[in-house]
Amino acid sequence: MADNLSTWKELAAQLRVDSIRATTAAGSGHPTSSMSAADLMAVLMTKYLRYDWKRPHAPYNDRLIFSKGHAAPLLYAMLKAAGAVSDKELLSLRKFGSPLQGHPNPHVLPYVDVATGSLGQGLPIAVGMALNGKCLDKAGYRVWVLLGDSECAEGSVWEGFDKAATYHLDNITAVIDMNRLGQRGPTELGWNGAAYAARARAFGWHAIEIDGHDLTAIDKAYAEAVGVKDKPTCIVAKTIKGAGVSLVADKEGWHGKALSAEQAKQAIAELGGERHLTVLGPEPDEDLAPTTRGPQPPKLPTYAAGGKEATRKAYGDALAALGKARLDVVVLDAEVSNSTHADEFKKVAPGRFFEMYIAEQQMVSAAVGLAVLGKKPFASTFACFLTRAFDQIRMASISNATIRLCGSHAGVSIGEDGPSQMGLEDLAMMRAVCGSTVLYPCDANQTADLVARMVDISGISYLRTTREKTPILYNAGEQFPVGGSKTLRHSDGDRAAVIAAGITVHEALKAYDRLKSEGIPITVVDAYSVKPIDVQKLHHVARATGGKLVVVEDHWPEGGLGEAVLSAFAESPITSLEVEKLAVRGMPGSGTPAELLHAAGIDADAIVAAVKKLV
Amino acid sequence: MADNLSTWKELAAQLRVDSIRATTAAGSGHPTSSMSAADLMAVLMTKYLRYDWKRPHAPYNDRLIFSKGHAAPLLYAMLKAAGAVSDKELLSLRKFGSPLQGHPNPHVLPYVDVATGSLGQGLPIAVGMALNGKCLDKAGYRVWVLLGDSECAEGSVWEGFDKAATYHLDNITAVIDMNRLGQRGPTELGWNGAAYAARARAFGWHAIEIDGHDLTAIDKAYAEAVGVKDKPTCIVAKTIKGAGVSLVADKEGWHGKALSAEQAKQAIAELGGERHLTVLGPEPDEDLAPTTRGPQPPKLPTYAAGGKEATRKAYGDALAALGKARLDVVVLDAEVSNSTHADEFKKVAPGRFFEMYIAEQQMVSAAVGLAVLGKKPFASTFACFLTRAFDQIRMASISNATIRLCGSHAGVSIGEDGPSQMGLEDLAMMRAVCGSTVLYPCDANQTADLVARMVDISGISYLRTTREKTPILYNAGEQFPVGGSKTLRHSDGDRAAVIAAGITVHEALKAYDRLKSEGIPITVVDAYSVKPIDVQKLHHVARATGGKLVVVEDHWPEGGLGEAVLSAFAESPITSLEVEKLAVRGMPGSGTPAELLHAAGIDADAIVAAVKKLV
Repeated sequence: MADNLSTWKELAAQLRVDSIRATTAAGSGHPTSSMSAADLMAVLMTKYLRYDWKRPHAPYNDRLIFSKGHAAPLLYAMLKAAGAVSDKELLSLRKFGSPLQGHPNPHVLPYVDVATGSLGQGLPIAVGMALNGKCLDKAGYRVWVLLGDSECAEGSVWEGFDKAATYHLDNITAVIDMNRLGQRGPTELGWNGAAYAARARAFGWHAIEIDGHDLTAIDKAYAEAVGVKDKPTCIVAKTIKGAGVSLVADKEGWHGKALSAEQAKQAIAELGGERHLTVLGPEPDEDLAPTTRGPQPPKLPTYAAGGKEATRKAYGDALAALGKARLDVVVLDAEVSNSTHADEFKKVAPGRFFEMYIAEQQMVSAAVGLAVLGKKPFASTFACFLTRAFDQIRMASISNATIRLCGSHAGVSIGEDGPSQMGLEDLAMMRAVCGSTVLYPCDANQTADLVARMVDISGISYLRTTREKTPILYNAGEQFPVGGSKTLRHSDGDRAAVIAAGITVHEALKAYDRLKSEGIPITVVDAYSVKPIDVQKLHHVARATGGKLVVVEDHWPEGGLGEAVLSAFAESPITSLEVEKLAVRGMPGSGTPAELLHAAGIDADAIVAAVKKLV
Repeated sequence: MADNLSTWKELAAQLRVDSIRATTAAGSGHPTSSMSAADLMAVLMTKYLRYDWKRPHAPYNDRLIFSKGHAAPLLYAMLKAAGAVSDKELLSLRKFGSPLQGHPNPHVLPYVDVATGSLGQGLPIAVGMALNGKCLDKAGYRVWVLLGDSECAEGSVWEGFDKAATYHLDNITAVIDMNRLGQRGPTELGWNGAAYAARARAFGWHAIEIDGHDLTAIDKAYAEAVGVKDKPTCIVAKTIKGAGVSLVADKEGWHGKALSAEQAKQAIAELGGERHLTVLGPEPDEDLAPTTRGPQPPKLPTYAAGGKEATRKAYGDALAALGKARLDVVVLDAEVSNSTHADEFKKVAPGRFFEMYIAEQQMVSAAVGLAVLGKKPFASTFACFLTRAFDQIRMASISNATIRLCGSHAGVSIGEDGPSQMGLEDLAMMRAVCGSTVLYPCDANQTADLVARMVDISGISYLRTTREKTPILYNAGEQFPVGGSKTLRHSDGDRAAVIAAGITVHEALKAYDRLKSEGIPITVVDAYSVKPIDVQKLHHVARATGGKLVVVEDHWPEGGLGEAVLSAFAESPITSLEVEKLAVRGMPGSGTPAELLHAAGIDADAIVAAVKKLV
C-alpha cells in the first residue's frame, strides 16, 4: 500500500505536469479540468483499469470514457504514462495533423472508442458497452466513465443513469469529478456531493462520496464499486479544479485556458517538476466466449406484387430475418417497437433486443456503444423523434461509429396524429451528417433489400419508412444498390420526369396514368437512395426530357430530396434545367393521409399540375 | 365537500365518456390515456385551475400543459365541460380542418399555449412560463403540467425537474399520471410511485404520492401543492389506464386505439351514460403589474471600419443594447455565455438573464414558455450544441412560438477544439424548420443590425456567429434587411460570382484580390440572409456572369448555403448555370483556423481554384 501510494502520488503529479506542458505548448486547452481528476485517474490506471495498451481495440479490455472530453490533456498524459504515446507526441496537442486533438477523436487515436466533447454522452454510450459485455459477449470487462459535474445538467446523463440501473449494469463505474466550477462560473450544485449521490441512488445506483484527492479513499471507492452486484456504482469525488497549482486551484476564470510559459514553469516547479514514469496497470482477462456461428445469408421476407404492405412492417420483417441469420445484429427501441415494427426482431431474438423506453438520446448512444464493440445495431423510432438525438447522431459520426437508424411515420402521410408526429425534417438532418447514407423505400420488397444492405454500410445509415400500407411495386429479390434508383415509367417521347421517393412514388404513378390519358408521357424515377443520389440517372432523364423535372417529397422544401436532386446538377450542369420542387410548405394538421397529401400539394393532383406547368 | 365530490364524480365520468365518444367518432386516438387522468383533471378544473375561458390568452390565467399530448381527447372534453367548445366540435376530433387535432396545436386552438405530442417537453416549457410569472411579470398564475409516466424516461423531463428546483419555482405543480402502461407494454417503473417521488425529491422538489382516482386525495394533494413555498411540487398519482371501463382498464394492447361503436356504447353505459355538464372553475386574479415603459429604439454598438471584432461579441453587445432599450427581451444561456457573449446582456439586465446550465433542451423549451407569454427570448450556445434541442426547435415551430436562437463557434474556423465543437450542420437544421429565418453575418456591424431585426421576426429565427475576430466590412448604421444580400465587389466584366456568408466572405475577398491581380474580375456577394435567400440578387449576378457561381460555406455540403442558392434557381431557371459548391466534405481535426479552412477546401486558395475552373 505504501508503495502504491507513492507511485500514485508521483503519477498524479506527472499527469498534472503533463496536462500543463501539453496545453501550454498548444496555447489553448483545458489544464485545470484535467488537474482536478488526476488523482482519480492515477489510481485507476495503475490498479483497476485492465487494459492491454498494445491492443487498444481488444474486446476484453476495460473501456474508459472521458465523458468530460475537454479533459483530453489528462487522457493524453495517461497515454504517455502507459507508454502508448511519446512525450514528443504529447506536446503535439491540438496541432494540425496530431492524433491528440482538442477533444478525443477515434478517427485518429486508437486508444479512445468514442469521440467526446459534446457533454453528457459518455454514460449513455457506456450503457451500450456494458450491455454488450453483460448481455451479449458475457465478457468480464468493466466500463469506467469520467463525468464532469457541469454535464450532469444534461438530461441525457439521467437517461444513462436510468437505463444502467434498469439493466442492472454492475459493470459500469461512473466517477463524477465534482470540481465545482463550470465554464463560466460555479456549477448549479457546487460541492453538494450529497445531492449528486441522492440523485444517483434515486435512479437505482449505488453511490459513494469521497474526497477526490485522497488517494486511499479513491482506492477504497474503486474496490467497493467493483464489488457491488446488480447495480452500477457512482463515485462522487469532491475535487478542486486546477488542484496542485496555487495560481489556478479553485479559481474562476481558468476554464479552457492554457498557462503562459512562465506560469507553467512555476506551476511545474510547484508540482515537483517533470517526471517520466511509465506505469502499467492490471492485464485484462481474455475471457471472451468464441463466436459460435458466423453470419448466414438472411432469408428476406417477400411480398407479392399487386398486394399492399407498409414499409415499416417490411423493416421489422427484414430485421427479424437478419436476426435469425447473424448473431451480431442487435436492435434498440424507444418504446414504439409495435409502431416501427422492430418488435418483429424481438420475437426471434429477444436477447439482442434492447428496450430503451422513451429515451431517444440514450437509444442512439447505446447503439454507438454496441457498435464500437463490434455489434451491428439498428435503432428505430418515429422519424420526427430522431431529432431528439441529432447531437448524438452528429457525435456518432465523429466517433467513426457505424450505426443504422430507422425513422418511421415520415411525413404528412401519417394522417390523423397531426404535425407533432410527422417527420418532415429527417432527410435534411440525416443528409447533413458526415459520410451518411440516406435511404427511402417505397415498397416492402425494396425495404427488405435495403435493410439487408444496411448491415454492410459503414458510418451512419438511415432508412425512412412510411406508416400506411403501400402497393408492392417490385418483385421480391430485385436489387437496390446504394446510390442507385429505379426508372418505373419511361418512353422515348417523355416530356418531363418526376423524381419521387417513398410515399410520393405512388402519387407519381397515379399522375403518370392521368397524364398519359391526356397525351403527356412522363418518366417516373424512384430515387430510393437519397444520399448518395443517382447522379448519372438524374442526368440521363434530364437530358431525355429537355431538363424538365418535378421533384416531389413528403418533407419540408429544405435539405431533402429536392435539394439532393439540385445538388446532383450543380457541378456538372446540363444546358437546360427547370425543376419544380413539390414539398410541404405550410404547417399541416390532422386529416386522412389523402387529404393531407393533397393539402400539402404533393399528391398526384399537384404532380399533374406541376408537369403541365413545365411542358 | 359532498357537493364537490358529486360534481367531480359526474364530471370525471363525463370526461371519460367524451374521450371515448370523440375517439370512436374519429376512428383513432387515445381514449385510455385520457381516462386515467379524468379524475385528476375533474378536480383541477372545478376547484384549482384559475382560468378565464373567454380570454384564453389572458396573461393572468393559470396555464395548463398536457405534456402527455396524446391525452388530447381528455383536454378537449375539458374544453367542452368549460363551454369553450361545443359537443359537435368535440366530435370533429382528428378530422381535416378541425381545431381539435390528434395532438394539441395552438396554431388552431387558442386554449393551448404550446404544442405537445413529442413527449418530455411540457415540464421544461413550464419552467419558462413559471420564470415569467415569478421573476418577470410577478404574476400569481400557476403552471399545471400533466405528465405521462412513460415520458419520465426522457432526459428533458429531468432537465425540467432540475431547473424548476434551482429557480425555486413553487408556482409549478407537476402531476404524473402513473398509469403503468406505455405504448407497447408496461413502463420501466410500473406503479412504483415511491421511485418517481424519490427522484423528484432528489431533484429538489416536494413530492406527494396519491391514488389518482381518489377524488378527496386529489383535492388534498392540490391544496398541499398550492401551499408549498420555495420549491415546486410533484404529485405522483397512481392511476389505471382506461379507468372506468372494464373492457380496457389496465389492459395491454389498448394504447392509441379507439373503441368500436359497439364497444363505445357498452363503455358509455358502464360509465352511466352521456352527460353535458358545464362547470366553471375559479376566476384568476387580474394581478399583473402594468408594463412600466414601452420599448425604445436600441442604441446599437458600432464598430470602426478597418478594425476587427468577432461576430459573437457583436451579438452580445447588441443583446445588451436591446436589454437596455426594452423590457421584454430576455436571454437564456446554456453555461457558455462567456463564449457566446450573451454575458454582455447579463451585465445590463441580470434579472432578465436566465442561466439554464448545460441543458440545451431546457434552454429552448424555457424560451418557448417565455415566448408564448409575451417575452422576446434569445437563447444561445455553440452552434453544434443546438443540435441537442432539434426536437424542441421543431416543436416550437408547431407551437407557433417566436424564439430567437444564436449558435456561436460555427464551422471548422473555430480551430483547435476539433470537430466535436464545430457547428457544421446548423444551417441545414435551422433551414428545415417550418417558417424559419436563418441569418449568418460576416462582420460586427452587420451582426448588430441583424440582432436588432430578430426582435421583430415571427417564428423561429437563427443567427450563426463566428469564433474568431473578423475584419469590419460595413459602416455602422448600414441596413441588412431579412431576405437581402450585399454585393461587396463587382464590375461590368465580371467572369464569375462568389456567393459567401460569414467567415467565407473574408476568404472570398482575399480571392477577389488575387484573381483581380491575375486579370480575372469577379463579383462577391455576402448572402447574410440564408433563409429567405435573395433570389433576385442571385439571378442578377448569375445573368451578369454567364451563370458561373462559386458558393462557399463553412458547413457540410448538404442543406446549407449551397443548396439554398441552388433552390433559388430551381423554379425560375436561367439559361446557363454552373455552380461550384465549396463546403466541408471530410471529417476535420484540430489546427489553426487558417489550416482548417485550407484543409477543408473553403479558403481563398480553394475559391481561386474554383473560379479558374469555371472561367
